[in-house]
Amino acid sequence: MEPKNFGNLQCPIARSLDTVGEWWSILIIRDAVYGLKRFDEFQKSLDIAPNMLTRRLNGLVKDGILERQRYSDKPPRYEYILTDKGRDFRPVLLSLLAWGNKHFAPEGASVLLADTETGAIAEPIVIDRVSGRPIPGSGFSLIPGPAAGERMRQRLARAAETAASRKPGDLYE
Amino acid sequence: MEPKNFGNLQCPIARSLDTVGEWWSILIIRDAVYGLKRFDEFQKSLDIAPNMLTRRLNGLVKDGILERQRYSDKPPRYEYILTDKGRDFRPVLLSLLAWGNKHFAPEGASVLLADTETGAIAEPIVIDRVSGRPIPGSGFSLIPGPAAGERMRQRLARAAETAASRKPGDLYE
Repeated sequence: MEPKNFGNLQCPIARSLDTVGEWWSILIIRDAVYGLKRFDEFQKSLDIAPNMLTRRLNGLVKDGILERQRYSDKPPRYEYILTDKGRDFRPVLLSLLAWGNKHFAPEGASVLLADTETGAIAEPIVIDRVSGRPIPGSGFSLIPGPAAGERMRQRLARAAETAASRKPGDLYE
Repeated sequence: MEPKNFGNLQCPIARSLDTVGEWWSILIIRDAVYGLKRFDEFQKSLDIAPNMLTRRLNGLVKDGILERQRYSDKPPRYEYILTDKGRDFRPVLLSLLAWGNKHFAPEGASVLLADTETGAIAEPIVIDRVSGRPIPGSGFSLIPGPAAGERMRQRLARAAETAASRKPGDLYE
């Protein structure tokens, strides 16, 4: 089941989820990052029904995450290339990769990110580009942005209260 | 529709998706990070059918992402608290937040992460903890881990070939 009205909400997380829509979409973006471009490449990789794949690809094109480019005129054939918006989704994939490796690979990791020069295994973490400090970490709060409506302000105020009622930094640490 | 057999695959991203299962689950984890703990708090926040919420909460408890704690004996009442595994999901939420703010908030951001001390708006980015370099960025490759099977090795070799056929760093930059 797919919620219908996330797009109406102000939460940027809900909006992101509303757009990538379904697991299939995320795995298609993953495959596009891996370099796959053609319908049959995605189909082979995902083992997905063709009509389902067509629907997902069209949705990702419509949402500006993939771009359809013709690579053959006779017969007409198309490739699907990540747009800038699609490429900007890669930090989400990296975070899912790190979480999966940490918690869902009891037999050991199957995919690792490595520093090509040194061969060292990379450890993706999130930091604040401005301060350089790791997030989650103490000293950060979620605050309403300029476009926040009343409901969002209430939600964030409630979160701040919860944080204040705990030990310092507990919410984001 | 929810794919059934992602858990059989080796990809850590697919495994993560298999576990968080549905958008509702991600929004429940988001709300738990916001400090919500009780059934009616989640229900009010998400506007979700009670039986659906019950199913999602039970799933998250079963998967070790939330822990059920009794807070009242008569009548018996429970709170849902994030486990360490659930808290480790926060980088995914931060990445979804940043993506949503960048691409799906044409009217301006509604939720921002701020440095509590300076008030500066934080910009969550992913870096490699080992080298300190931003990811995605040139100089990183996905490589098979110790547990990679044949199919995963082929997939990663294909990705490496694709990367090599493009301009340097194109795949991860």
